[in-house]
Amino acid sequence: MQTKILLEENEIPRHWYNVVADMPNPPAPPLGPDGNPVGPEALSAIFPQRVIEQEVATDRWIEIPEPVREAYALWRPAPLYRAHRLEAALGTPARIYYKYEGVSPAGSHKPNSAIAQAYYNKREGFTRLATETGAGQWGSSLAFAGEMFGLDVRVYMVKVSYEQKPFRRSMMQTWGAEVLPSPTDRTEAGRKALAEDPENPGSLGLAISEAVEDAAGREDTNYALGSVLNHVLLHQTVIGLEAKKQFDKVGDYPDMVFAPCGGGSNFGGAAFPFLADKASGKEVRLVAVEPTSCPTLTRGHYAYDFGDSQGLTPLTLMYTLGHDFMPPSIHAGGLRYHGDSALVSQLYNEGLLEAVAVPQVETFRAGVTFARAEGIIPAPETNHAIRACMDEALRCKESGEEKTLFFNLSGHGHFDMAAYDKYFSGALENYEYPAEAIDAALHRLPKVRGG
Amino acid sequence: MQTKILLEENEIPRHWYNVVADMPNPPAPPLGPDGNPVGPEALSAIFPQRVIEQEVATDRWIEIPEPVREAYALWRPAPLYRAHRLEAALGTPARIYYKYEGVSPAGSHKPNSAIAQAYYNKREGFTRLATETGAGQWGSSLAFAGEMFGLDVRVYMVKVSYEQKPFRRSMMQTWGAEVLPSPTDRTEAGRKALAEDPENPGSLGLAISEAVEDAAGREDTNYALGSVLNHVLLHQTVIGLEAKKQFDKVGDYPDMVFAPCGGGSNFGGAAFPFLADKASGKEVRLVAVEPTSCPTLTRGHYAYDFGDSQGLTPLTLMYTLGHDFMPPSIHAGGLRYHGDSALVSQLYNEGLLEAVAVPQVETFRAGVTFARAEGIIPAPETNHAIRACMDEALRCKESGEEKTLFFNLSGHGHFDMAAYDKYFSGALENYEYPAEAIDAALHRLPKVRGG
Repeated sequence: MQTKILLEENEIPRHWYNVVADMPNPPAPPLGPDGNPVGPEALSAIFPQRVIEQEVATDRWIEIPEPVREAYALWRPAPLYRAHRLEAALGTPARIYYKYEGVSPAGSHKPNSAIAQAYYNKREGFTRLATETGAGQWGSSLAFAGEMFGLDVRVYMVKVSYEQKPFRRSMMQTWGAEVLPSPTDRTEAGRKALAEDPENPGSLGLAISEAVEDAAGREDTNYALGSVLNHVLLHQTVIGLEAKKQFDKVGDYPDMVFAPCGGGSNFGGAAFPFLADKASGKEVRLVAVEPTSCPTLTRGHYAYDFGDSQGLTPLTLMYTLGHDFMPPSIHAGGLRYHGDSALVSQLYNEGLLEAVAVPQVETFRAGVTFARAEGIIPAPETNHAIRACMDEALRCKESGEEKTLFFNLSGHGHFDMAAYDKYFSGALENYEYPAEAIDAALHRLPKVRGG
Repeated sequence: MQTKILLEENEIPRHWYNVVADMPNPPAPPLGPDGNPVGPEALSAIFPQRVIEQEVATDRWIEIPEPVREAYALWRPAPLYRAHRLEAALGTPARIYYKYEGVSPAGSHKPNSAIAQAYYNKREGFTRLATETGAGQWGSSLAFAGEMFGLDVRVYMVKVSYEQKPFRRSMMQTWGAEVLPSPTDRTEAGRKALAEDPENPGSLGLAISEAVEDAAGREDTNYALGSVLNHVLLHQTVIGLEAKKQFDKVGDYPDMVFAPCGGGSNFGGAAFPFLADKASGKEVRLVAVEPTSCPTLTRGHYAYDFGDSQGLTPLTLMYTLGHDFMPPSIHAGGLRYHGDSALVSQLYNEGLLEAVAVPQVETFRAGVTFARAEGIIPAPETNHAIRACMDEALRCKESGEEKTLFFNLSGHGHFDMAAYDKYFSGALENYEYPAEAIDAALHRLPKVRGG
């Protein structure tokens, strides 16, 4: 009774999978304020050349540089688990598998892209990276990645998180990053916010503005984003590519793939490599799982909208709750983005992907059931995928179907135990994003030609 | 350039290694208050029969039951890493390897014994376990193990830790354990302490008394200890046994083995399987690393002493700072025991093991250097082994020797970031346990026949 399906280090993928090559239609272009398509050169002030090329690449396979594979080897290939104990606990005839990305030093899948981005910046002569972080998953991943390639990293951390989550901050400092509570007095955006309100608690949008300003203003510095963009999803495909090799090893293949979906890199990384098979006729259902409090795919508008809350980015065709969406304060911090990756959005719109929204309390209930069966305590974001997968496994119990289910166990919950505490104390609530707010957002979407 | 040396699941050892079989002399017997040897039957009120048999076993190999191997498979075999990046950072010609035990759900090596103990209790019909925990490593390991075998677990957690370290507590609760701040009103020992001082902050000694009383007073309940005793060291030998297979795979073998040493199970588990080779003539140095604030092996007395602070246990011949030793409040909580495992003590006394004491600030400096090179943030206990191993690697740099060095990366530091915070803020200090206190302890050791 095998529990873990392992790969050797030389089985770390040599190429990332670019889903653009298998899309029925080319990706809708981002648009500028004038309604005209924006070329990739617009990104050159804040991203290295190779990352910009990847953002618009159409090749199916993109080579993973050897130094990136060497850094991946610190934790990859990540194990694929067969969840024998969870299956028994649920009494389901379904076969459940999960890929454990929490084995990375930062504890989630995020370093898969952070390592690649740090490498390309280093190779092109940049010596410093600026980024933002909310709960700290991305900031700690970039801190780790920067240290691996000898880059200085500055993280603008939303001030309220900086104060409430000191341990993610210490983690970033352990890897040598400079962590500042945002808003800071180091940027125009920060100074402006502080002038208006010296007690400003910060927001992710503001921290992004600070990091982008920092990167745009210094020749030695670039910016790095942890989700949403095409190149980030590309880097994350190592998850699904490894999982496919692991399924081959045991002669199984998933009927359904589940992954949490916020900006889309977690889901895209796990699911896109299976979509390649779907394009060649294989039956596999790919399910993005989001919170009912931020139901972007399941209830949002498919429209051109800004990527940031300030309206500074190009416009992207995506599912959105409106760029001025104010997410309620739920714990699954990584799934609170108002929009979604353009690639995920377009593929969902074309019917190649599915989505489901799950309420918060039920996600924690699933996470605790999982931990008691399998040992690993999952991150709150991950609990969304577990919930949806368990629901399917319970449907299989009713129907007697022996489906093969696969989910991405994208991170551990070691830095999220306060959220578990709230769950145990009964202080967590479910939250259904109100229909009126979704309707209202429609009228505030930017007007674009053809939008 | 291979980073991780992996084993397949079917390479999890089938037997634990019992060092007693290779000791030059039989273990000195524990003594009762009357000075006469105490037989293993004295333990039957609080331990299952098979554990008591293992406590006095003399066979070299003891079979690991299949259900224990299956539970081990949730995280074992643990990877052996070649620390290429650390070697480069230090500029040493030494080859450095580490075994990463932090991959267990509880985050350290402790579940290696917790799983075995939970299994034997289950098999012998017990339904409930009681234990104590200080910082939480052992309590969370037993909570996890109890859940894997369907046992109820109650953890008496030192009250000051219960309040200051809520996240380890939440972790235990996630695995279904009942966690109480000790002293409680559930035991005589607790009630007595509370009557004397309702604000009693608790101590590990008092929590042990509560857990033992709980176990002794209920037929369905046993006690479980996380270090010191022979059976615990036995279970931990999976660490060294796996490491030896992994060294075989790459055709290397350590000149020196380093592990942190508090009660001795971490060190014994990593080092004893190599001692077997030493018994058959192979040259390998085995180095126990302890803090200068609790220098049991390097500066303690080799004498019969109580295992607990209250003087309730049988007397054990061991290195001790005196059972009334009050450890200063340092962060490496797991290394603050006044004594040491009888097996480690006797082998050290016979010259088969070495020991070194390292000061706290230097251990954190080593841990940060390690994290910046290799990614993983180690537990403070682990940093002791890293310090000693790095010191040797730096000596190799001076001498040009290409030694093979191996240390046990016994756990991650995800629940210890507050200690790293203190290190970064300069609030940590070194502490040399005073010579007068060690001299004074000699006069307070219990008098025993032949002692």
